[in-house]
Amino acid sequence: MRPTPRVETFPANTPAASQIFTTVLSQGPLTRLEVARRTALSPAAVTKAVKPLIEAGYLVEDAADEVRPALGRPANPVRVDGGRALFLGVKVTGDEIIGVLTDLCCRTRGARRVPLADRAPKPVLAAIADLVGELLVQTAELGVGVHGLGVAVSGDVDRAEGVVRYSPFLNWHDVPLAELAAMTVGLPVTVDNDVRALTVAEQWFGAGVGLSDFAVVTVGAGIGCGLVVHGRVVAGAHGVAGEIGHVTVDPAGPPCHCGNRGCVEAIAGEAAIVRQVREATGIEVRDATEAVTLAHRGVPGVREVYARAGEAIGRGIATVANLLGPERVIISGEGLAAYDLFAEQIRDTLTAAAFGSAAQCDVQTRPLPFEEWARGAAATAIQSFITPDDPHPSR
Amino acid sequence: MRPTPRVETFPANTPAASQIFTTVLSQGPLTRLEVARRTALSPAAVTKAVKPLIEAGYLVEDAADEVRPALGRPANPVRVDGGRALFLGVKVTGDEIIGVLTDLCCRTRGARRVPLADRAPKPVLAAIADLVGELLVQTAELGVGVHGLGVAVSGDVDRAEGVVRYSPFLNWHDVPLAELAAMTVGLPVTVDNDVRALTVAEQWFGAGVGLSDFAVVTVGAGIGCGLVVHGRVVAGAHGVAGEIGHVTVDPAGPPCHCGNRGCVEAIAGEAAIVRQVREATGIEVRDATEAVTLAHRGVPGVREVYARAGEAIGRGIATVANLLGPERVIISGEGLAAYDLFAEQIRDTLTAAAFGSAAQCDVQTRPLPFEEWARGAAATAIQSFITPDDPHPSR
Ligand SMILES: [Zn+2]
Ligand SMILES: [Zn+2]
Repeated sequence: MRPTPRVETFPANTPAASQIFTTVLSQGPLTRLEVARRTALSPAAVTKAVKPLIEAGYLVEDAADEVRPALGRPANPVRVDGGRALFLGVKVTGDEIIGVLTDLCCRTRGARRVPLADRAPKPVLAAIADLVGELLVQTAELGVGVHGLGVAVSGDVDRAEGVVRYSPFLNWHDVPLAELAAMTVGLPVTVDNDVRALTVAEQWFGAGVGLSDFAVVTVGAGIGCGLVVHGRVVAGAHGVAGEIGHVTVDPAGPPCHCGNRGCVEAIAGEAAIVRQVREATGIEVRDATEAVTLAHRGVPGVREVYARAGEAIGRGIATVANLLGPERVIISGEGLAAYDLFAEQIRDTLTAAAFGSAAQCDVQTRPLPFEEWARGAAATAIQSFITPDDPHPSR
Repeated sequence: MRPTPRVETFPANTPAASQIFTTVLSQGPLTRLEVARRTALSPAAVTKAVKPLIEAGYLVEDAADEVRPALGRPANPVRVDGGRALFLGVKVTGDEIIGVLTDLCCRTRGARRVPLADRAPKPVLAAIADLVGELLVQTAELGVGVHGLGVAVSGDVDRAEGVVRYSPFLNWHDVPLAELAAMTVGLPVTVDNDVRALTVAEQWFGAGVGLSDFAVVTVGAGIGCGLVVHGRVVAGAHGVAGEIGHVTVDPAGPPCHCGNRGCVEAIAGEAAIVRQVREATGIEVRDATEAVTLAHRGVPGVREVYARAGEAIGRGIATVANLLGPERVIISGEGLAAYDLFAEQIRDTLTAAAFGSAAQCDVQTRPLPFEEWARGAAATAIQSFITPDDPHPSR
């Protein structure tokens, strides 16, 4: 394991204690008895684990219920004191870096963006350092310590080792980003794939709270997917998982950057949509925003491009549903700006291609700006702080 | 929960004790210290849990190592006494019922087949009762109790409720098979989907031992898939999971019984292969065996049918690899009789369609006769006996 600076040690040093804290964090306020029920631990174990967490100020007991039982366990609910610790989250895209400051409950306390002129590791690290410096100015006023930084990068990321194995957008190979960033900013650093980071945020603080099996599908420049199975984010034995963008929709379809043809991303990714809109209209659209505008204006042929994109995304989601049977699919990403243009096709294709009761999965859309991706990175930092030994802990 | 007859109660009544026994069952003989390491439990907890299991005869301590430490924990390895308990497993196919008698280590002690003239629930139950009766005759000689029956059926099966929700092969809808079979045979009954049952057997006693993420792909009349993610078999929130047979390979391909076109099963299932061989040759082949014979004789056009089938299966496996990144994929099923005809296409397509390091997953083939499916059913009965409260326990 790489060495990381340690700011403060979290006083829950057993898997059970981490699980108890995580349950209160994502589902609280809860009484100790309810925590015991949800974690399948004994009430005595919960009471024992809660005590040092209250003493250290991470949990607080609401005194609303003044009628205490004379004997036995306190009946008041406990909740996490979000203001007890701060975290930073950074999302690196191809042309800018987005950073947020959050509290322990992953509520955003500040946000900044800096443009990225050069995608090489060194200038990216310098930009991260600048951004972190700006956000840290704010924390001085709050008088609370920052306990970790999460960095989210698209591509094949080994979170346990803190290494970006391969990021096509950045053209990085085997960059030990966690170690480099920790040296630069002087904080413990967690590096994860951006879609998995977003999935952690949804699992602990969003539309996935309380679900053991769900998927997050991100639509935009790429088509990504974060999977939670049996309560844990799927990372893949070899670092690759959730590659819904490379599910084949049509083996005779357009070529994809992965080397195959007719992948979901080769039909529904933003570059593919822009290309197809150009072909259909002869208009030299520059980006997805222009393509959406043409579609909304009713320029002939453009809506059909989005309809095909919706079918491709729906087929990808149906594949996930048929293989894993998730309770819920959360569709998100910057591509949601065009959601009205393909929502119907996504739903219709999913219904038609889902096998039997797999079609029952609940589909939700969550428009998430880039700051939410950065918040996902902060969620991984919170996760690392709470459960330092397990890179992919259960809830 | 439905009532089930209880033959004998297993003396491991906590999740930790079940986990300890399961670890010794699938990976033993092991020393207590090694069990503690593999389960992440304390050595004291292991020693405490092992004691009643030894007293009840489920675990035995090998006395090979005579040099005992004067103080401290016994250093001798413990293992499961397979002969301590017997189990029955039954696989129901469209035209016969295959049954096995196994010991607690899922070693086959006897096997029987009975033909099935009528697929309605009543005659199937009668045939199961006959088969079980024949197998029980053998157990009398062994002088050991039978502790449960597992029944494996293809289709949408709710194991927790013991209900076959829908089985296309049998044309069953909402049949409470566990309850009916328990009344008929007087044993606790576990009902599960046949591919999931086979996956349990691989996970505990086969090529999946020690792996937290792997897939079993079955090739034959149907194309199925059992998935183990984070150490547990995936069942799906709504009962559907692992439907690799309905991954779309070609949206313009042949129609599938699921209502879509170009599914893996519509190209590589046995009925599809027979149909395509007829079309290619004009020969009225009756079944898969004849089709394989024609291919091996070099009849023009037949090998091409198998090549396309191999490509379809390879694409389905690539989709599983891209979404879940399993450590290993185990290909099995009666269709392996034709494996030499499509092995190359499966591997080539998987390599081409897998994204990045997902291609690193280890592909193994395991020719499994129908008796192995029945053994899978017995494995689910063993699992229910050891961990009675959790229908999908972790290892
Ligand atoms: Zn691709
Ligand atoms: Zn189908």
